[in-house]
Amino acid sequence: MCAIVGVFDVKHASKIAYYALFAMQHRGQEATGISASDGKKIRTIKDNGLVTEVFNEEKLSFLHGDMAIGHNRYSTAGSDSVRDAQPVAASYKLGDISIVHNGNLINKHEVRSKLVEQGAIFQSSMDTENIIHLIARSQQGKLKDRIIEALHVIKGAYCLLIQSRSKMFAIRDRYGVRPLSIGKMKEGGYIVASETCALDLVDAEFVRDVRPGEMVIFQHGKEEFESIQLFEPDPHICAFEFIYFARPDSVIEGKNVYAARKKMGMKLAELAPVEADFVIPVPDSGVSAALGYAQASGIPFEMAIVRNHYVGRTFIEPTQAVRDLKVKLKLSPIHKILEGKKIVVIDDSIVRGTTSRQIVKLLKRAGAAEVHMRIAAPTIEHPCLYGIDTPSYKELISANKTVEEVREYIEADSLAFLSIEALKESIGNDMNYSLVSFDGNYFIK
Amino acid sequence: MCAIVGVFDVKHASKIAYYALFAMQHRGQEATGISASDGKKIRTIKDNGLVTEVFNEEKLSFLHGDMAIGHNRYSTAGSDSVRDAQPVAASYKLGDISIVHNGNLINKHEVRSKLVEQGAIFQSSMDTENIIHLIARSQQGKLKDRIIEALHVIKGAYCLLIQSRSKMFAIRDRYGVRPLSIGKMKEGGYIVASETCALDLVDAEFVRDVRPGEMVIFQHGKEEFESIQLFEPDPHICAFEFIYFARPDSVIEGKNVYAARKKMGMKLAELAPVEADFVIPVPDSGVSAALGYAQASGIPFEMAIVRNHYVGRTFIEPTQAVRDLKVKLKLSPIHKILEGKKIVVIDDSIVRGTTSRQIVKLLKRAGAAEVHMRIAAPTIEHPCLYGIDTPSYKELISANKTVEEVREYIEADSLAFLSIEALKESIGNDMNYSLVSFDGNYFIK
Amino acid sequence: MCAIVGVFDVKHASKIAYYALFAMQHRGQEATGISASDGKKIRTIKDNGLVTEVFNEEKLSFLHGDMAIGHNRYSTAGSDSVRDAQPVAASYKLGDISIVHNGNLINKHEVRSKLVEQGAIFQSSMDTENIIHLIARSQQGKLKDRIIEALHVIKGAYCLLIQSRSKMFAIRDRYGVRPLSIGKMKEGGYIVASETCALDLVDAEFVRDVRPGEMVIFQHGKEEFESIQLFEPDPHICAFEFIYFARPDSVIEGKNVYAARKKMGMKLAELAPVEADFVIPVPDSGVSAALGYAQASGIPFEMAIVRNHYVGRTFIEPTQAVRDLKVKLKLSPIHKILEGKKIVVIDDSIVRGTTSRQIVKLLKRAGAAEVHMRIAAPTIEHPCLYGIDTPSYKELISANKTVEEVREYIEADSLAFLSIEALKESIGNDMNYSLVSFDGNYFIK
Amino acid sequence: MCAIVGVFDVKHASKIAYYALFAMQHRGQEATGISASDGKKIRTIKDNGLVTEVFNEEKLSFLHGDMAIGHNRYSTAGSDSVRDAQPVAASYKLGDISIVHNGNLINKHEVRSKLVEQGAIFQSSMDTENIIHLIARSQQGKLKDRIIEALHVIKGAYCLLIQSRSKMFAIRDRYGVRPLSIGKMKEGGYIVASETCALDLVDAEFVRDVRPGEMVIFQHGKEEFESIQLFEPDPHICAFEFIYFARPDSVIEGKNVYAARKKMGMKLAELAPVEADFVIPVPDSGVSAALGYAQASGIPFEMAIVRNHYVGRTFIEPTQAVRDLKVKLKLSPIHKILEGKKIVVIDDSIVRGTTSRQIVKLLKRAGAAEVHMRIAAPTIEHPCLYGIDTPSYKELISANKTVEEVREYIEADSLAFLSIEALKESIGNDMNYSLVSFDGNYFIK
Repeated sequence: MCAIVGVFDVKHASKIAYYALFAMQHRGQEATGISASDGKKIRTIKDNGLVTEVFNEEKLSFLHGDMAIGHNRYSTAGSDSVRDAQPVAASYKLGDISIVHNGNLINKHEVRSKLVEQGAIFQSSMDTENIIHLIARSQQGKLKDRIIEALHVIKGAYCLLIQSRSKMFAIRDRYGVRPLSIGKMKEGGYIVASETCALDLVDAEFVRDVRPGEMVIFQHGKEEFESIQLFEPDPHICAFEFIYFARPDSVIEGKNVYAARKKMGMKLAELAPVEADFVIPVPDSGVSAALGYAQASGIPFEMAIVRNHYVGRTFIEPTQAVRDLKVKLKLSPIHKILEGKKIVVIDDSIVRGTTSRQIVKLLKRAGAAEVHMRIAAPTIEHPCLYGIDTPSYKELISANKTVEEVREYIEADSLAFLSIEALKESIGNDMNYSLVSFDGNYFIK
Repeated sequence: MCAIVGVFDVKHASKIAYYALFAMQHRGQEATGISASDGKKIRTIKDNGLVTEVFNEEKLSFLHGDMAIGHNRYSTAGSDSVRDAQPVAASYKLGDISIVHNGNLINKHEVRSKLVEQGAIFQSSMDTENIIHLIARSQQGKLKDRIIEALHVIKGAYCLLIQSRSKMFAIRDRYGVRPLSIGKMKEGGYIVASETCALDLVDAEFVRDVRPGEMVIFQHGKEEFESIQLFEPDPHICAFEFIYFARPDSVIEGKNVYAARKKMGMKLAELAPVEADFVIPVPDSGVSAALGYAQASGIPFEMAIVRNHYVGRTFIEPTQAVRDLKVKLKLSPIHKILEGKKIVVIDDSIVRGTTSRQIVKLLKRAGAAEVHMRIAAPTIEHPCLYGIDTPSYKELISANKTVEEVREYIEADSLAFLSIEALKESIGNDMNYSLVSFDGNYFIK
Repeated sequence: MCAIVGVFDVKHASKIAYYALFAMQHRGQEATGISASDGKKIRTIKDNGLVTEVFNEEKLSFLHGDMAIGHNRYSTAGSDSVRDAQPVAASYKLGDISIVHNGNLINKHEVRSKLVEQGAIFQSSMDTENIIHLIARSQQGKLKDRIIEALHVIKGAYCLLIQSRSKMFAIRDRYGVRPLSIGKMKEGGYIVASETCALDLVDAEFVRDVRPGEMVIFQHGKEEFESIQLFEPDPHICAFEFIYFARPDSVIEGKNVYAARKKMGMKLAELAPVEADFVIPVPDSGVSAALGYAQASGIPFEMAIVRNHYVGRTFIEPTQAVRDLKVKLKLSPIHKILEGKKIVVIDDSIVRGTTSRQIVKLLKRAGAAEVHMRIAAPTIEHPCLYGIDTPSYKELISANKTVEEVREYIEADSLAFLSIEALKESIGNDMNYSLVSFDGNYFIK
Repeated sequence: MCAIVGVFDVKHASKIAYYALFAMQHRGQEATGISASDGKKIRTIKDNGLVTEVFNEEKLSFLHGDMAIGHNRYSTAGSDSVRDAQPVAASYKLGDISIVHNGNLINKHEVRSKLVEQGAIFQSSMDTENIIHLIARSQQGKLKDRIIEALHVIKGAYCLLIQSRSKMFAIRDRYGVRPLSIGKMKEGGYIVASETCALDLVDAEFVRDVRPGEMVIFQHGKEEFESIQLFEPDPHICAFEFIYFARPDSVIEGKNVYAARKKMGMKLAELAPVEADFVIPVPDSGVSAALGYAQASGIPFEMAIVRNHYVGRTFIEPTQAVRDLKVKLKLSPIHKILEGKKIVVIDDSIVRGTTSRQIVKLLKRAGAAEVHMRIAAPTIEHPCLYGIDTPSYKELISANKTVEEVREYIEADSLAFLSIEALKESIGNDMNYSLVSFDGNYFIK
């Protein structure tokens, strides 16, 4: 899961991109990069680390120009090197180009094989490099047409921002799996970002979302951006954006994330009621749903787990039970509140089950008499292939165990999940969602 | 405001001190240090930065031994150098000694003048150095008696941990202004820390608080620690520990901080009710009190401000309205929730008024129809001289303006503070508190 | 000017490459990189900085395997980014490949244009990327044949090391402009390096030089390396390797660099004698020639200029006469020796004239009565296009001024250069040299 | 062995101190520090590392003011911590004070014991701290008189620079063991430094040396500095400054170091002639003496060992024969020159014998037929207690072995040292030298 941002026709474009990436940093903490164009040349800086670690005033000054695109990547297995940071910048027949990508191409191996067969070289393992090759190899005369040709080759979930020396293209796949919003800067110019919270931070006014299947083109001298509907829209907005990834203050397709999460909690209270003294969230991800659960059930809400936000790069001796310690360093239960009480604890999801197991243990050790876990999402039974880094079937606990078996494993007194139906109702029945992790309906063919 | 920790008679003492300091890091982010003794020599490492920035596996290995003391300092004006980091370690007539200190000595200038008159040199601006000089200059034969002599010279609020090569002393002033708790490690040995959350993280069992006016002595070969009541206790526990500094999961003098904060919110609801659609906290410091306010008033609780925890060392261009941006980078309101609504926003205190003013502005810009600010503490009208880094009278807004004038300045629709009486009731009327910031009663003479 | 190294069939290949690069570090100080293969995968680490700055034990351990290639780059204008560091590693149809290159391709723009026309993308500005593209696009079935095809497209001066997962290729252009030597490791396996001083450091035995126009192939299971003479040899060994770049202890085509430099000094003494009290070198580059001049002329040799080797990254305020200070920080004359004396000062070359001018000034200020500058190379009148980073005609002082005018500019009492004929005799008349900088004979067509 | 510098009454004093320390960096590479006064306050920055590593433009700007003192320390055993870096700055009765010290106090333990007995605390292991304590404890009214009182307590070899907020004191012990020179800055103001090479770099004009037993006082408003002869001079200039420590371009007591070293080589040629093909130096320390040996003997001089100046912090695997590798990384013999030849190799001293042994081995492996080692100093048979970090008797090879036994150990074909008499003649018989390392005459009582 990544954050991408594009900024067009503004002063100090790379600084605005920096702040926008900063707002979306919860989406990615491993690597970050920005490329900027001053009309003559595209310059790029990217490295491992947080936004604030990779950039400083001097580096942003180097990236001068009035347009920029940026990327912030979440840790993904096997890509421990800076060579897999984005943007991917290159020069090709028409000049400099730079691309950032959020999503996942399902036919990347076929595309790569074909390209390699034709003599292409790959300097990273990112599927983003596929796209740049397809654009470079197109016989079309204009970049726009080359991009369109490339988009007809790739399949998958993608939000793309492509920058030439003078134009910027924003593209969303026909399913609209990943969100992408357009904002207008106060002093003129545009910003396009994965999340509306980025627009808010830089004081941009929300214009509209890029539509599923749409390509938006920003060019100098034109006040308005151009829109081309490339593909028939078939919206499947990723439900996980609402469940976990997006920031509560963001708005996706007109729906506020915090409000949606609260409704998930409310539905959960209806579907899986329990008698308890308190409702508590696993902070920070379970807070909104827990508030909803509390409001719907009438059970008091308490913040009985304190989160330590300084964890960062704490070294931990590998000889100890490391995973245990990691949760302990991050989450501390309030003994005095929990002692002898029956607790409903709300979290956003269960993936492998190990974290939930430790949380139940922490709460019981802190004196909780009963721990009832309620998950504000359905059981994750399938890997997402559309941009979320879920593990394989083997590691997904709900792909291998019944709810009762999971409950036993995590040692909770009871356990319940939201139904898929209730999830959809919570976000809004007026839209279609990508629910692959829950129902295994891999709709991208 | 600092965090101190001492660890005695355990394996890898410096590692345990590291984890304990990590748990208490909200108390200090500027500089940190640990000194450890292996019975022969005291070694010290200290530097500017977070606990996780200053230490790594290698440095903690260098600090080997079975006892250690550590310190984590909050940013204080004018002390931008590593020379003001603690512990202060020195060698003197009886050998190596190391000290950490949380608090403030009110007669430090007199003591320093006298020492300087006698030929002492000071290599820092910390009052901790006073204490080490007094100990070194004492004519007493034993360290214990030297410390006692020194303690009869200094006046103020202090929690001290003093380490020789083989003993550790924990001392709390007779007023008990700053907290200090003793825990027992599972595999033997002791930990003494500013906050019980440190004990929890390292799995230590709470034994008891160090008593006001008490000196506790840990020495090898004695299973039990020795206790000497040096001064008549006259308890004045700092109310600000409950209001702001301590972590919600900590317990001070038997009182849980989270519970106390919730009660402050409840009292506030009674004293300063208002009709509103939502109660929202300023995260993270106002969360507990806001929950109390919501529960007592029956007004729904919402987390309508999102906090960005990555802020850290974000560089901010000084040409902009910097203070504004700082608050914006940290706090993001959820527009969809706030639009057109009447809001009660709960914060823990108002010092200069600038932050509150920006928060009201953020909320109004996000669409809030009315913003009623409620502060879960009384008006701060006096500088604390007992260890909290409050500004001078000139900068304290409530020392210079009436509540109505403050309301006008921060542009809230209404504003109310907790009464001193209600504050005391919230924490518990069975104890005496240090309330100097509120009532100007400077009880240490 | 770069250093390259390849190591084949040895334990800890990347460590040996590291030490070899370290020995050749005078050739490059700006960026360094190593890629290693363990038979399954090629891993690469490269960054700006000295060999010792880029690598540590941990990084070399990451680069495990029994073969490695490495590169160390000299500062070149405009390439201030890590993206122009080598090796260039990529995956293509036949798997992983990595290349390092020392030299310069004269038809790189044509080749790049053609490749770009065919849809290739370039992620750096290095001509090395051309070669990898040509290999990837070849229709040949085997890597060896693809490389050969590529070599028939490129023109210029090059030494290449190419690594697949299991083989290593060492290639030298038909002119043999840049040196490349093969050594045998004591415990088996091979090393190929730009300079024999690298072989000495890692205790490898010199086997022979790679021949002009030859491709040498190292593969597992074959004790002996394979040799293919790809092009008719037409040797033009770069004279500048002898004059300046190579280390005095290195041996190129059987000729020791130190001995050659001494002979240049001797010839210079014959051609341009002068009455003087002392011969002094500009350290370190002029030392060998100065010794030769002294021995031939009978004038005493003195080390009257002290070189400060710590200069490195000294920051220098840009407001001052920076170039002046830079020379001053590096070179300090010994006043007591120089006062009132007639001095012959020997340097290896004059490029822009600015450094020579400052050296004369330093010596005069230190009291020298007369400063006679003797340059152990002919006048540089043409840019080298074969791998040495010489400036354009406009900046080359000898392309624009007569020797007398240069003398005037540098304010020396007399000035003389070596003749081209004498240079050739000094190194040895049995070989043909690349002398483009001196005679403008651009022999590569 | 350290470098100290003081700068008085100049603009950007800390920058000038920085450049002066940079010039003297061969004297110390482990830690460096500067303190500066702007008339109101003394600020200090010090850390482990080279001059260029510890300071940058920003840090020097922080150290603003018109006077500064600085220190650069050589690696000494057991002091691996920043707490032993100088200057030592403190505040005492009369205000701020800062001290740097080059030398060694022989009664430091007695002084420290007495101070500690009186209640002093020590925050480092440096004897410099003794001096600051003595000054602080003096009953004298003025700093000058306090310093004088302190100087009557301490015994040993010392050059001191002491800075108050408005004055600077330069002091040299009555033996003048360590050098200290005064220079006048071109635009007014003074510099005092351990070596005249520092004066040259910052364009200061040499005024004179501080005299043995003299205190020089610089104060604002007085064009001329004040001089007080505190002690009867009894000059014993350290011979090792001429042999090894000082830079060849420096001048000590009117004697140029390079010229002295050449004479040592000449004397050595007279005393210990040998038939040989070449004279070669161990670079860089043996170069000057080797030139002298060559000139006196008529044997040709060759630079047959190349020194790699990039060594720095090369990590070296501890499993290998580390010491061997260290010499190899630094020194590379030129095989072609050495093969089959009889060599005289000149070095400046033999301490433990291990390095000499490796050099002989390197030369023999490179093909030298005979290796005759000549040392341009007498045998080191006693530890220097006056500021040079020589090892104990046990480790000094010449304290335990005859010259013949040393020769056997280092495996040279012959070995000879300079006589003490010849050493004195080489530097000049008009002065008295500290020769303790050679004759064990510990003249400071």
